[in-house]
Amino acid sequence: MTDLLIRPAQSHDRDAIWSILEPILRAGDVYALPRDWDGERALAYWFSPAHHVFVAESAGAVLGSYYVRANQLGPGDHVANGTYATHPEARGRGIARAMGLHSFETARALGFSAMQFNLVVATNTHAVALWTSLGLREVGRLPGVFRHPTLGPVDALVMHRPL
Amino acid sequence: MTDLLIRPAQSHDRDAIWSILEPILRAGDVYALPRDWDGERALAYWFSPAHHVFVAESAGAVLGSYYVRANQLGPGDHVANGTYATHPEARGRGIARAMGLHSFETARALGFSAMQFNLVVATNTHAVALWTSLGLREVGRLPGVFRHPTLGPVDALVMHRPL
Repeated sequence: MTDLLIRPAQSHDRDAIWSILEPILRAGDVYALPRDWDGERALAYWFSPAHHVFVAESAGAVLGSYYVRANQLGPGDHVANGTYATHPEARGRGIARAMGLHSFETARALGFSAMQFNLVVATNTHAVALWTSLGLREVGRLPGVFRHPTLGPVDALVMHRPL
Repeated sequence: MTDLLIRPAQSHDRDAIWSILEPILRAGDVYALPRDWDGERALAYWFSPAHHVFVAESAGAVLGSYYVRANQLGPGDHVANGTYATHPEARGRGIARAMGLHSFETARALGFSAMQFNLVVATNTHAVALWTSLGLREVGRLPGVFRHPTLGPVDALVMHRPL
């Protein structure tokens, strides 16, 4: 998508972000977050003080959002962590890829030297393929740590790349 | 140690717990937590609402403390996470091992089905050996994610065991 604008999220983006997060939370197959969170609780999490939140916008419509943050504190605070959400109706248009690349630049600008994802659900093959194509590699496989709504306990991957 | 009592922490244990945590934080070679936290900040973290905090006591003296919590939310909340601290002058007496075993029982009683440690500093060979002897296995190796105060960036292990 050449017309995609990725910019810091503002408070007026909250409803649009919730419309993206809600179906992903309810589906329960991607995030290790409560499936029954309401908008207030989910947005309080998404906009946590330690999160740098961005939205991806096309023709005035917010189609995706992500945040980056320090993955750990103290002697681990040189590694970033990110979480990404694309509107279900806007999938397949390269929005997640664009947000991923943007998030690496953001993390570099914030002083981080690596990106780590702590829990990429192994059955989320689109995500695994996307992150692999963007230079992340599997550095761990967590056995059965995610309860998939239809598949039961499935593995999750820890993925990492230098920035 | 046969005379070790492990019990839920109380507010009157705070000073004793801080005397254990402070030297570990200041050394900066074990926890991904800020080295410069003061007692108030460290104890607010240790006693976070989601943490179940215990102390190990011998002859009326608190020699160790640990907490367990859910490692993730929602579809990941069946896996526990724990953090452990032994008073530097009480090392080598099996206190960490006793707390580890106690934490597994605690986690089981709370309904968790596995234990995961997200960041065991690879150079902390005592910890790696202890957890391995207690049935945890390395399920991931995180490259350079911990800035050791003398060794520079070192790897950390993700360790896991069913309960």
